[in-house]
Order: sequence, then structure tokens, then C-alpha cells
Amino acid sequence: MPLKSETRDKLKAVSTATLCTALFKRGLRNQFMQDIHPLNASLPNMVGEAFTLRYIPAREDLNPITVFQNPRHPQRVAVEQCPEGAVLVIDSRKDARAASAGSILVSRLMVRGAAGIVTDGGFRDSPEIAALPFPSYHQRPSAPTNLTLHQALDINVPIGCGDVAVFPGDVIVGDKEGVFVIPAHLADEIADEAVEMTAFEDFVTEEVLKGRPIIGLYPPTEQQSKDDFVVWRKNNGR
Amino acid sequence: MPLKSETRDKLKAVSTATLCTALFKRGLRNQFMQDIHPLNASLPNMVGEAFTLRYIPAREDLNPITVFQNPRHPQRVAVEQCPEGAVLVIDSRKDARAASAGSILVSRLMVRGAAGIVTDGGFRDSPEIAALPFPSYHQRPSAPTNLTLHQALDINVPIGCGDVAVFPGDVIVGDKEGVFVIPAHLADEIADEAVEMTAFEDFVTEEVLKGRPIIGLYPPTEQQSKDDFVVWRKNNGR
Amino acid sequence: MPLKSETRDKLKAVSTATLCTALFKRGLRNQFMQDIHPLNASLPNMVGEAFTLRYIPAREDLNPITVFQNPRHPQRVAVEQCPEGAVLVIDSRKDARAASAGSILVSRLMVRGAAGIVTDGGFRDSPEIAALPFPSYHQRPSAPTNLTLHQALDINVPIGCGDVAVFPGDVIVGDKEGVFVIPAHLADEIADEAVEMTAFEDFVTEEVLKGRPIIGLYPPTEQQSKDDFVVWRKNNGR
Amino acid sequence: MPLKSETRDKLKAVSTATLCTALFKRGLRNQFMQDIHPLNASLPNMVGEAFTLRYIPAREDLNPITVFQNPRHPQRVAVEQCPEGAVLVIDSRKDARAASAGSILVSRLMVRGAAGIVTDGGFRDSPEIAALPFPSYHQRPSAPTNLTLHQALDINVPIGCGDVAVFPGDVIVGDKEGVFVIPAHLADEIADEAVEMTAFEDFVTEEVLKGRPIIGLYPPTEQQSKDDFVVWRKNNGR
Amino acid sequence: MPLKSETRDKLKAVSTATLCTALFKRGLRNQFMQDIHPLNASLPNMVGEAFTLRYIPAREDLNPITVFQNPRHPQRVAVEQCPEGAVLVIDSRKDARAASAGSILVSRLMVRGAAGIVTDGGFRDSPEIAALPFPSYHQRPSAPTNLTLHQALDINVPIGCGDVAVFPGDVIVGDKEGVFVIPAHLADEIADEAVEMTAFEDFVTEEVLKGRPIIGLYPPTEQQSKDDFVVWRKNNGR
Amino acid sequence: MPLKSETRDKLKAVSTATLCTALFKRGLRNQFMQDIHPLNASLPNMVGEAFTLRYIPAREDLNPITVFQNPRHPQRVAVEQCPEGAVLVIDSRKDARAASAGSILVSRLMVRGAAGIVTDGGFRDSPEIAALPFPSYHQRPSAPTNLTLHQALDINVPIGCGDVAVFPGDVIVGDKEGVFVIPAHLADEIADEAVEMTAFEDFVTEEVLKGRPIIGLYPPTEQQSKDDFVVWRKNNGR
Repeated sequence: MPLKSETRDKLKAVSTATLCTALFKRGLRNQFMQDIHPLNASLPNMVGEAFTLRYIPAREDLNPITVFQNPRHPQRVAVEQCPEGAVLVIDSRKDARAASAGSILVSRLMVRGAAGIVTDGGFRDSPEIAALPFPSYHQRPSAPTNLTLHQALDINVPIGCGDVAVFPGDVIVGDKEGVFVIPAHLADEIADEAVEMTAFEDFVTEEVLKGRPIIGLYPPTEQQSKDDFVVWRKNNGR
Repeated sequence: MPLKSETRDKLKAVSTATLCTALFKRGLRNQFMQDIHPLNASLPNMVGEAFTLRYIPAREDLNPITVFQNPRHPQRVAVEQCPEGAVLVIDSRKDARAASAGSILVSRLMVRGAAGIVTDGGFRDSPEIAALPFPSYHQRPSAPTNLTLHQALDINVPIGCGDVAVFPGDVIVGDKEGVFVIPAHLADEIADEAVEMTAFEDFVTEEVLKGRPIIGLYPPTEQQSKDDFVVWRKNNGR
Repeated sequence: MPLKSETRDKLKAVSTATLCTALFKRGLRNQFMQDIHPLNASLPNMVGEAFTLRYIPAREDLNPITVFQNPRHPQRVAVEQCPEGAVLVIDSRKDARAASAGSILVSRLMVRGAAGIVTDGGFRDSPEIAALPFPSYHQRPSAPTNLTLHQALDINVPIGCGDVAVFPGDVIVGDKEGVFVIPAHLADEIADEAVEMTAFEDFVTEEVLKGRPIIGLYPPTEQQSKDDFVVWRKNNGR
Repeated sequence: MPLKSETRDKLKAVSTATLCTALFKRGLRNQFMQDIHPLNASLPNMVGEAFTLRYIPAREDLNPITVFQNPRHPQRVAVEQCPEGAVLVIDSRKDARAASAGSILVSRLMVRGAAGIVTDGGFRDSPEIAALPFPSYHQRPSAPTNLTLHQALDINVPIGCGDVAVFPGDVIVGDKEGVFVIPAHLADEIADEAVEMTAFEDFVTEEVLKGRPIIGLYPPTEQQSKDDFVVWRKNNGR
Repeated sequence: MPLKSETRDKLKAVSTATLCTALFKRGLRNQFMQDIHPLNASLPNMVGEAFTLRYIPAREDLNPITVFQNPRHPQRVAVEQCPEGAVLVIDSRKDARAASAGSILVSRLMVRGAAGIVTDGGFRDSPEIAALPFPSYHQRPSAPTNLTLHQALDINVPIGCGDVAVFPGDVIVGDKEGVFVIPAHLADEIADEAVEMTAFEDFVTEEVLKGRPIIGLYPPTEQQSKDDFVVWRKNNGR
Repeated sequence: MPLKSETRDKLKAVSTATLCTALFKRGLRNQFMQDIHPLNASLPNMVGEAFTLRYIPAREDLNPITVFQNPRHPQRVAVEQCPEGAVLVIDSRKDARAASAGSILVSRLMVRGAAGIVTDGGFRDSPEIAALPFPSYHQRPSAPTNLTLHQALDINVPIGCGDVAVFPGDVIVGDKEGVFVIPAHLADEIADEAVEMTAFEDFVTEEVLKGRPIIGLYPPTEQQSKDDFVVWRKNNGR
């Protein structure tokens, strides 16, 4: 079940904070990746299905520099196989002491039409990656080649990333704040709900900046707040 | 004893580093909050009396999304009660895995005339908060609603924030480097001393950039340094 | 054996990521400092021989504010003795709870012609340091005076910094990503090799951005890739 | 509503692991204190209502050694006021760099009839405390006096301890594995359920040690398992 | 290629420290699991081939208590399938905030003839596990059910455990100090070498306790040391 | 100025907790090593002058296994030079991922008459070391040879250990709780004071166990407490 383009569009216009609240209401409290940050905070939202790559610790004899001569090396294969519109999500065991990938692979992924890349480790060539018009998220910059500490192993299996479970096909949303994982089967309904919540939050923000108190407005426990929101939606076409 | 406006003005013109040294001389070595950063580093200093909010870990049954419908929820109340000119300081137990607050509450606080907001956890909607002309400080962005991990409990009690003791009424100063806590009874004398120290440091910086060695100048163990400073003050009206 | 100016120039044009790979091939896997970041990411590469300063934990009775009146205080002496073109590297035991140095000392170092400064702790006056046209690297901003937690002890002895061994005279290279340590005896050959690698990586990046797949190209396991690189070098004068 | 003595007796005979499962079934996933260990692992279970003490970071001028001469110092008062049968639970902000209390206070607490003591920091005189026939739990030994880093502030307010919310009157259970917090209103029903679960687990353990496979037995998805348990209860008087 | 029984016997008589040195000589520097400890330090060495179980973070909707009613739940299946003589090694992502397994499963594993169990998280019912005559290793006790934070996913795939790569069939050796991973293809030769090294270390220890200096003896750079060892071996039948 | 034998004897009879308080009164708040534990908790106090060894991170090319063939390797030399009655204190940068030393070196140190050994890393062969009648303290067991991560560099220079400054000749005291550093010039007076404090604490403990309240007794703000202590001292010959 591919991600619908309408759902993708809706998710491009909502924040990870709003998504957190929507999932919290359904009992999913742990879908925001911990301590993962955008390299380029000026880009629009990243939205795409998860295509995953799993790393384990590198054993020195299995990870000489020559492994990249193997055309079947999983890191290279993942970059060439990640579908258009998908997000490559790498389980680096939260270890940023060596890189998860560098700018050449990230560039290739961008050119191939992927929607973005996420690791819970770090990227090398991070200044170059940050300059690409391509959403990328990591913990912190890390120059050492991935072979130093990571062995690429599995492609498109369920993983952990930033302490969140990521199943292939889950919908990954990244904004300037970080990265959120929507279970695949909830994507459409969450997108709808988040668009509604965003409209309300935008209304509230306007009201608050005009000087209105929060209590009774957010949440709208007073009828007047609800009425005003109806008017605001009409006036703002939302 | 409210913060004098002259003291506030003086503290707007000094750095947290200078304040650290002034308090170090008095035996207070631990007044700078650890690992707390400004969301918007282009703003002038934040100065205001501490108005505090204490969080404890959230128990799930006590923190459904519906708690915000209670007009007496301490987080909401704190935002509505924080005095004009004060800084809302939140004890989040250094836990940034869920948010301490989001942009709507921070906006409300700004509109109400508060001087700033500090948490030793993280804010959600951090890109929006960073865009406000309002000083805010946290550990790192965190999208999950505060209910996920934090229960707001107490208003205006002594707390810890970033490993520093904060008593209501203490004077909070934030600059681009971080946040400092001046015990209330010391605010006036420290402000005076810090202004003096700042003048001397500005003089030294000018001299150093002209090529003068540090030894004998900083600290001014040579009489010439002291004399030159006297002239500099006169010339610069400080 | 001073750092040759040609070697310095070459290292100004390569990245720490490339250097990591070059040393990885020689079995040195741990030469990139962990969690150390530039204060000013707009500067060109920092390159210089290591001149070191070692801190131990501060005992309160040995570190009153008056110690700076001693013209032989090691921190001050290090700043006045660091050779032109060298990088002052400070072992702060990865403890950023108090500063390693502040803007006045860093300014002095700049004026004296040093190539840069690195600590695995934090700097105070970090906004001022970040505004200097002088490469500086640390873990995070830290306003408390160094006396709070650090006692400067030794000058130009082998140290650890960011979990890397640094011997006086090792060649320190910093870019926007972080800081790398080249053992002194390898500097010339590594510089040559890194320049070659950089040319190839620039070629690959161009090709990738044009749409070429990675496999066979990076590394160049296909002869066509090697041939194209030869042409590219000629065309680009590299 | 004091803790019923039958409930206390039941909780003395169950494990914190069993309690975790019982609360997990009710959606409370975070009631086991993280990284808190018994000083004396040979004692029977600790069971009692929480009587709390809250610490904030110590400011040096407020915490000279002379504060203990004040008969109203909250740490001393807490030890003298903790009710018989209660557990003193100290919020030390998970900071074990200085002690939460020492053997003399713990001895006094024991003599007064308290049920035990818990901190998420460390105890000093830990070898002496470990030798007392009195349940005590901490993170790790810590010799420095509490005044070094902790200021005792509040008595019997809601706190966090080991990342768990603790409200005065909650029922604290400690075994050789660690410490669990039962919300007061659930204590009776949880005690009943845990006794039942324990009987079943004891039956399963016996069966498993005799060689029976887990599947179908644990949980008892096969009718035979349920039948055998009925027989076992009768035979064992449980 | 199963583990030879002679190799198993040899490995029962050597220490993880000796094994570390043997692998260090071959360039494998990272085969000792970090921060993993025996629950029962009175048992002889654990030796067996790795049979692995991989956990990812638990998503709440996929991990209700009822999942254990599924006879195909991977955690249960792993316990029933782990071969006789093998060690069950669990990748818990170094997260000990919830259990990896409890005493009933560990008992079943013991009864089925496994050689031991290792997790880089924690066990629940740890006091009961510690009392079993069965080698078990973890980070620290943890009472919450694994469902709280872990979802069992894969059986017998390559994993990371305690920052070490573990491939199915690797030989796992545990002693009172911790757990070591020998790549399968090296097991025989390492066992031989470690037995030799152990003989020499036992000789050296005896000599040192008699008062002999280390230099020249350890390593045996003096011929006399080598000669004495020859005699010692003969006298001691080793 | 060697440690007087009377001072040594006095320090054998007091606790690190008591010493912490004595130094706290003099403004030295940071003399207890953090997170350092005895391997053998059944031994009497360790007391001796510090003889130090400094490690830096190991660079692979400088630390092959053959370095131990050099009779001047600083680790071996330190063990052979540590004076009788002294404590070898190793600065391992708090990194326990590889060993600081193993049982053979520790045995040699014991045989040579040293008073003990301390590292802020870990020991290998820790079970053997724990069985020696020789005080040893570390963070946690660690089997990998020190060459993996540590290069021994300096002997008997000032170091940091467990976040405490240690100068050669400082008096190191270890008990079941941990390790304390007394600045050399204070050793005699602190020993006297600690013996006095210990007598009072023993008196208080007896009284408390008899049922006496703490307030007025500890500290002895009531005259009766002081009078009773005088009698107790006479009766107990202290």
C-alpha cells in the first residue's frame, strides 16, 4: 500500500509536534526520534515511506576499505534500491563515533529521487550534505568512515532508529524540529487529523499574538473559542 | 523586593561569563545552567526575576490529553500568572525526551510581557519559538507533548534547573552563551561589579587586538595597565 | 621538523572525512576528535602543529581568582608561547562544565599568529570567539571561569583531546565538520594522498549529481570510471 | 487511607517484576525506579507508604556545615517525622556525586520504625547501612556530605525518584531487584492480583524445572496448563 | 561447523582477558562486551555457539500483554529453539530500562541444555536467575516486562551486543569478568593459543608472588624466564 | 615529607565519609573519586601516598603488543618503582572500555609492598585481583589489554582520577565506600580531626540505636549530648 499523494501533501504541511499529539491520543507515545537533528533547517518537510538499512558493530577483519569494491555491499545497494519518494532510515545503534554515510551517497540518493535520509548516528561530509536541497537528519557530524564502527547488514527489515521502532513502509516525517514515524496503517487518518489540528493551532496562535488568554481557548473549552474558530476557518479558507 | 530597573538595565549589558567570575569570587561556583542554549541567538540579554514551574515524571493515568481542559492545570496557570518582566524557569529534571512547552504557550508568555522562558528539558515547535522576538532557552528540540513524560505540579517553589538552584525572585540572566542565576539579595551589587568588569574587559580586548601581551594586563598586575585603563575610561565615557 | 608550507597548503584544501579514510587505510582508526565542533563554521580549514596544554581537575585552594596574577600561570604562558602557525590544543578531560578559555586569550592567540585553538571542554565568551576570524573548536559553550573545574598544569606534553592522542608537533586539521590529528611523521604523505583523494571525490560528486550510479564508480571498480577521471583531471587542471 | 496490613503482607510476598506486569496491564509502564539497587540484598521485601523528601541543588552560601545545627533542617525533620511503617523516598535528582544521607540518619529511621529508605542518589557510610537489618536502596555509594550538592527543601510533596512519579502515600515495594511504586488507590487490588500471579509463576517455575516447555504453559493457552495449576494450588495450599 | 568438544573444554579453562590479548594480536580489538556482568559469579566459564535474538523498540499497539499467547512469539520461540550447548545472545540495544527476559524463560533454557544467556539490557527476576546453576550475563537488573520497551523480532541473525558484532555460530565465552566473542573460524586456534598463554600466565603469577620482578619475565624477554617456564611446565604437567 | 606512621594508622581507622566532611569544612568539596569501587570489600582501609601513572589515548601504531618487551615501558616501570607503602593511582581518563592493568602487575605491586592501586578505568583479571589481600579500586571490570585504548605515558606527575586532582604525595585513603584524596600538607591535621569525629559518630550511632532522637544530638546542639559524649569517651577509652 503506497503512500497516497494526498497524504504526502498533507503531511508536508504539518509539524512533528502536532503528529506527536495525534499519536499520543492513540496511545503511541514514542514515535519521535530522540536527539536527531536536520542538517539543513531551511528545507520544507521531508515525507516518505521508510526504506531501512541496518548496521551492526564492525569487526575489523570484515570491514577493510576494500569491501566497497563489492557491488553487493549493503550500504551501496541500499542507496541504489531505495525507492523514489522513500526515506532511507539507518539504524546506527545511536553511535555517532563513525559516520553512517557521506555526501556522495547522499547525493546519489537525492538524484535518484528519494525523499530524504535519516540516521541515529552521524554523517561525514556534513557541510556538503547540509548544502544539498535534500532533507537529511542525524545526531552529529562524524568524519570517520562507517567501516570504522559500522557494518551494513540488512536492507528493509524492521529496525530501531533514535529509540523508535521503524517498520519498512512506515511514513517518516521530518521538519525543522526532528523526525517522526507514523505507522503505515495510520498515515491517512493521522494526516487528516493533523491538518485539522494545524488549522486550529494556527488560529490559536493568531489569537494569542493578539493578546487572548490561553485558558478556554487552548483547548477550546469555551464555546466562544469554537465559534471564533469556525469564523476564522471561513475567513482563511481552511 | 522587586528587581530595580537600573539593575535590570545593567544586567542587560553584561555577559554570563562575567557574572560567573563575579560570583566565583564570592564562593558561588555553580550558578551557570549546564547544557542550556538559546533558541534565538540574535536577541539581546534576557533579564528578569525567576518565576518557577516544577515538573515531576508523568504517570499515564494522571496525564491524558484531557487534563488541559482543566483551567487550573499548573502549566497553563503558570503561563497566565508569570509576572511581567519575570522569567518562567521550568524544572524538567534535565529530561528532553518530551517537551516542556510549545510555541503557543511561549507566545502567550511573550504577549503577557514576561522577560523570557527557560527549561532544562526541550521545547516543541522550536522553529516557531526561535522565530519569536522573545528569549527562550532549552537543552534541545523535543516534539512530544509534555504529558508524555512531565506532569506540571508546583508553581513558584524553589527548583533545580540545569543543575543550578533557582529560588523564586532570583535574577535570571541569559545571553547568547546560556543562562545564569543571581541570588536575589546579590543582584544589585553584582550588577554594579559586572558593569565595572565589563568596562575593563572591553579595554583589555581592544588592547589585545592591538597586539598587547596578556601578562601584566589581564589581570592588570602592572601599574601601566591600570593607568591606561583610567585613560581609556575617560576617552570612552565608561 | 616543522610543518612544510606546501603540506600546510594541501591540508587547507582537504576535508577531515578524507583524512579519516587515509589514516583508516594505515590502521589508525581513531584520529578524529569526538563531539568537538567549530564555533565559526564560515572559516577556511585550520592547519597547524599541535602545541598542547594539559588541565587537571581544580582543587579549590590552589585555584582562587588570584592565580592569574602569577605571570607564570600555565594557561597564560601557553597563550604567550604557542608558536606562530601552531594550534593550541587543550586537554580539558572532556569536561565542559567550566570554560577552557575565554575570548581575551583567544584574541591574544589570534594576534600572535597561531593557527587556531581546540579544547574538548567549552569556551566562555563563545559568541565573541565565534565572531573572530580565527578557527576555534570546542564541545559546547561554558561561561564559568576555568578555575572552577580546571587547573592548567603542563605545556606541550602528549595529551588526550576528544578521545584522540595528541603529541606536540602532530598536525591538527579542522574543517566545518570537526578536528583531525595527523601523526607528525605522516603529514607530508597524507597531505599528498588526501589531495589525490579529494580530486577523485570531486569528480565522483560531479558525476553523481549528473545522475551516474555509485556502483562501479565509487570506488572505481570499472575501468570506465578510471578513464573518465583521467579526462576530468585534464579538463579541470587537477 | 492507610495501607491495610493484609495488603502489606501480600506485597511482602511478591516481586517487583510481577508488580510491573500487573501495572503494565493497566497502562502504567513506568513505575519501576531506574538504576536503583538494594544495599543489603539479603533482606525480605520492603513495603510501606511513601513519605517524601525533595532536594534541590545546593547553593554554597545556604549550605555550610552549620545548617545542621538548625533543628528544623528538612533532612533531619524528615527523619524524625517519617511515620512508622512508611518508606522515606528522596528525590536527589539522580545525582549520586554527593550523599543523600548517612548511616546515623538511616539508623534513626530504622529505630523509629520506618519500613525503609530510597534515594535516586547515593548513601554515604554505605557499608554500615548495608549491615543494618533495614531495607535501603540507592544508585551507588557516595561519601561526600549531602551539603556538597543537595539542599533538603520539601517534605512530603510529590516528587520524581529514579524517573518515577512518587506521590505521598503511594505504596513502595522493594525487593532484591529494585523498587516499585504502586499508586495508592490501586494497592489493594494490585496486591491481590500479584499474589495470584505469583502462585501461577511458582507453579510454572516448578513445571519448567521438571522439563515442561513454555509454549502453552506460560501464558496458559492450553487447557491442560490451567487444569494442572488448579491441582497444584490444591496440593500446595495456595 | 559445530564447536568441537575439545575446543569447548579448552575455552572453559581460559579467561576473557587472555582471549582479548589473543585477538588483539590479530587486529580484533573489540570483542569484549562492554558493561555486561555475570549474575552469578560463582559458576565456571560459559562456552557455546551464539544463537541470537534481536529486539527493536516496542511500539505500544504491537506489544500488549496478549502477544505471549501467540505460540510463535519470537522470544518464546528462541528459547525453545536455542540448540543444546549454545548461548542465547540478545541484542537489547543496550537498553536496560525494561527486561530482556525473566527467570522462567531462563530456567527453560537451562533445562533444555543451553550453555548460557547474554543480553546487553537487563534481566527481570534477577535474584532467581542469579540462583540458578546457569551462566547469565546482563547490564543491570530490570523488573519491567520486555514488552514495555522491547519487541522480539528476529532469530539467529547477526546482531550487536554490548557494542560487539555477534554472528550466529560465533563462540561466546563468559567468565567472572564478562563476555567475549570469538569469530567462529578462529575458535580452534584461539583456544589452543589461549591455553598456552594461560599456562605461561599461571607460571608468571607464581613467580611474581614469590617476589620475582616483572621486567624480563612478563613478557619473557630474558632467556632465563623462558627456561624457567620450560621447567615449570614439566613440573606442573602443563 | 613522608607520611607519618601515626597518621597512617589514624587514617586506617576512619571512613572516607568522615574525611569528606572534614575537607568540606575547609572548602575542599571534591576530594572523593566519583564512581570508583573496591574489588575486594572485605579488606581494611587502604592508606598511602599517591604515586601516579598517566595514560593518554592509545594510537594503534605506537601500541602493538610488542611494546611490553621494552623494559622502560612506563606501565611496567611504574609498577617496579612505586614506593613501599604508596598507592599507585592511574589516570585512565575515566575510560573503562579497556583495562588499566591486570592481576600480574597488581600482584607484583602487592609483593613489592605497595599500599594499593586505584584507576578510574577498569582492571582485567578482576576476579583474581579481587581475591588478593591487596586493596584495589576501579570503575568496572574490563578484560581488553590496556594497549587497546590506553598508552602509559608519565610517571608521578599530577593527574586527575575519578574527577579529583591527585598530586604525587597526596594521601590516598580507600575504604569499602570508595577513595578519598587528602592534600599532602593537610594529612596530619585531618587525621587527628577525623579520629575525633569518628569517636563522636560512634557515640552517636550507639545512642541512636538505643532510641535517642537526632535533633540536639547530631550535631550536639544540646549540652546534654556533649556531656554524654565525655562520659562515653571515658567509658570506652577513646
